[in-house]
Amino acid sequence: MAKLSIPQGTRDFGPDVVRKRNYIFATIRQTFERFGFQPLETPAMENTSTLLGKYGEEGDKLIFKILNNGDILGQAQMAKDSRELGILLCEKSLKYDLTIPFARYVVMNQGKLQLPFKRYQMQPVWRGDKPQRGRYREFYQCDADVVGSNSLLNEIDLLSIYDTVFSSLGLGGYQMKVNNRKVLTGLAELVGRPDLMLDITIAIDKLDKIGDSGVRDELTGRGLLAHEVEQVMAFIALRGSNDEKLDRLAEVFAGSPTGLKGVEELRFILGSGLTQFSSPPEIDLTLARGLNYYTGMIVEVKAPDTVKMGSIGGGGRYDDLTGLFGLPGISGVGISFGVDRIYDVLEELQLFPETAQQGTQVIFLHPGAEKLAEVYGYVTRLRQRGVNAEIYPDDVKQDKQYKYAEKRGVPYIGYVEDNAPGTVFLKNMTGKQRHQLSIEELEAFVF
Amino acid sequence: MAKLSIPQGTRDFGPDVVRKRNYIFATIRQTFERFGFQPLETPAMENTSTLLGKYGEEGDKLIFKILNNGDILGQAQMAKDSRELGILLCEKSLKYDLTIPFARYVVMNQGKLQLPFKRYQMQPVWRGDKPQRGRYREFYQCDADVVGSNSLLNEIDLLSIYDTVFSSLGLGGYQMKVNNRKVLTGLAELVGRPDLMLDITIAIDKLDKIGDSGVRDELTGRGLLAHEVEQVMAFIALRGSNDEKLDRLAEVFAGSPTGLKGVEELRFILGSGLTQFSSPPEIDLTLARGLNYYTGMIVEVKAPDTVKMGSIGGGGRYDDLTGLFGLPGISGVGISFGVDRIYDVLEELQLFPETAQQGTQVIFLHPGAEKLAEVYGYVTRLRQRGVNAEIYPDDVKQDKQYKYAEKRGVPYIGYVEDNAPGTVFLKNMTGKQRHQLSIEELEAFVF
Repeated sequence: MAKLSIPQGTRDFGPDVVRKRNYIFATIRQTFERFGFQPLETPAMENTSTLLGKYGEEGDKLIFKILNNGDILGQAQMAKDSRELGILLCEKSLKYDLTIPFARYVVMNQGKLQLPFKRYQMQPVWRGDKPQRGRYREFYQCDADVVGSNSLLNEIDLLSIYDTVFSSLGLGGYQMKVNNRKVLTGLAELVGRPDLMLDITIAIDKLDKIGDSGVRDELTGRGLLAHEVEQVMAFIALRGSNDEKLDRLAEVFAGSPTGLKGVEELRFILGSGLTQFSSPPEIDLTLARGLNYYTGMIVEVKAPDTVKMGSIGGGGRYDDLTGLFGLPGISGVGISFGVDRIYDVLEELQLFPETAQQGTQVIFLHPGAEKLAEVYGYVTRLRQRGVNAEIYPDDVKQDKQYKYAEKRGVPYIGYVEDNAPGTVFLKNMTGKQRHQLSIEELEAFVF
Repeated sequence: MAKLSIPQGTRDFGPDVVRKRNYIFATIRQTFERFGFQPLETPAMENTSTLLGKYGEEGDKLIFKILNNGDILGQAQMAKDSRELGILLCEKSLKYDLTIPFARYVVMNQGKLQLPFKRYQMQPVWRGDKPQRGRYREFYQCDADVVGSNSLLNEIDLLSIYDTVFSSLGLGGYQMKVNNRKVLTGLAELVGRPDLMLDITIAIDKLDKIGDSGVRDELTGRGLLAHEVEQVMAFIALRGSNDEKLDRLAEVFAGSPTGLKGVEELRFILGSGLTQFSSPPEIDLTLARGLNYYTGMIVEVKAPDTVKMGSIGGGGRYDDLTGLFGLPGISGVGISFGVDRIYDVLEELQLFPETAQQGTQVIFLHPGAEKLAEVYGYVTRLRQRGVNAEIYPDDVKQDKQYKYAEKRGVPYIGYVEDNAPGTVFLKNMTGKQRHQLSIEELEAFVF
């Protein structure tokens, strides 16, 4: 028999990991609900035609396609190449993100939905990327989006959600970086190369990784003249508080209405004082974010500097996402949480609370046939009052049962003794102390 | 542009449905935890070789296979038929149930797992069945299994879990039917046709659908002689309490050690008095359950008679499931909840509580730029004290905002008025009464 395995880039989650992940999911879910976002779930599969062409040529290749059932040999023989084969043989594919299925849902339900529609979605997605540390072929996305409202209050709500979630998780020192795509357009106009807006943003987005000189080289390579390169470098070298940066930008953008609009938007989002942040967002003029559909504010959250992890969330405003499916003119804004990375950060900083790791609280040793009804009765009562309680099911040597409970890390072992009728013993496995309790005391015992 | 759709047999779940489903999941999850079961999650994809051959020939055809990435045209041209094509082109497939991935997990982690291992798993599975009412191509399974223990206490725990969950859901009048595969073996021995055990069980399992004469025909068609058929019919016609049935079975099984073992097991499970059931399990000698891997107790839960729904859960004891993957000698017992059908039953009987449908509790109307900070402050305070609160993001006509809140079914609308500074109005959308509150009163208001 071949060695058993699971597909590359996928994972089994054992009990401890599921509990900790659920703690993260529950924190995010509760916050989404507090802010009035509503849950949506879409199928794992979408029609292949819904997904193809939405993620660029590279993305198309990474979509997992599902083979049609039935007689497919004939169809297979008609294909000219592997790409065509995939399209011919696979009407369905696994979803690649939550955004396109969301847009598809909005368009399919446009008559019924009340706009603005605020939805959140927490589901797995699948990508045929090369697996590596921190990159999986099956992973969860947790998104919140508002569609059908141009108000910047949505941006403020979404930044507050980040702040609320990361504060609730105890993650002090995380950083929220914001920028605005219109500011980046303004920069390209300022430099006199609006045609190279995308090239410029791609280059400056790499500042963290390749440094000043790297960005210079990249800008030159992408066709900027020397003085244009210097203008860009001066721009991203702007330092100071948010207000200082915005004041300076307002000056340099005197000739760029788009740039000025971006400044005005950022000023409202960051300067309205509508909400207090435990870790206030900072303007980062090099922040570009890869996805081309962003048109307004963009945001990225970075883990505390003490952890080497990079981005643990991001998002922004986009116009016309549903236009892809024939429903133009609907603006949206959304954010996403990188749950796998958040998990790693909380683990590294030991921020998971005890309660997130709580499974079975007490295991009773099997007392032998004669006292079974008595002990099973105690276990039942504990369960009824909300304690997670087990009884070791087999009547084997107590030593074996004891070791079992110990290895599972269950905090209490319960048992009865022949010479102490009507009482129950609880052994605390961490403190090692033993409690002898009457039945009434067991009823009231706090595990 | 082609009309947008989602794949046949899949579903989008909008906010109301997700909330109600989550209520069912949470009830089941909490009960599993109370009984000491631990969560496990396995990937959506398994290696195709892990799944093939585990669900019979029909099952194999219904497995959704995932196309390999990369250059597949050459491989495709080597296939002789559609079946071979699927195997050549698809290393990975979507999981078909939770049981085989669980067995695979146990075998892969046999060194690390403490046995008995009690796990629960609540995840979607995929089957290429022809979609019809109540049958989907993507649906959730909720399973709890114990492996590595022969104790019948596990059976008692699992029946108690059914009882606890359905009681918690308020589903009075559901019926738990139990039987034992060993009793069915005993029946075949009794009739003198142990070779036809499977044929007999398949026939009597259909009693509900095809009636007495249908079962007679089917038994005859499957090769039983007339007097053998009568023996089977007399057997399944046994009436009375569980104890009466078991007493009678003990008599007729005098010559069948396996049959007697089955009776003894049922007697312990049903007669030990270890636990009280709100709806006690009943012995149903026609219950067979399709899956051949069952070897001991089998159970099926039926919705209350007032609802035409059939089985809403089932399970049983199996031996040697992990033997499929080279780890023999491990017994297991498990149950499953049919969440989609439970949903339909609760919906039909209107058993979803208000709290399972609670989304946003209050929407504040946009007060205009001048008072925005004040109202956003109220919303923030409400969120901080656990109320799901929104502010309508756009400064549009109040009439439009009002209708929006009404259509969404939000119970309270909040607003401020120019002539009443420092007070907030809350309009209850069900009772239509209006509360005028000071800020302190808003802080204490129970939504």
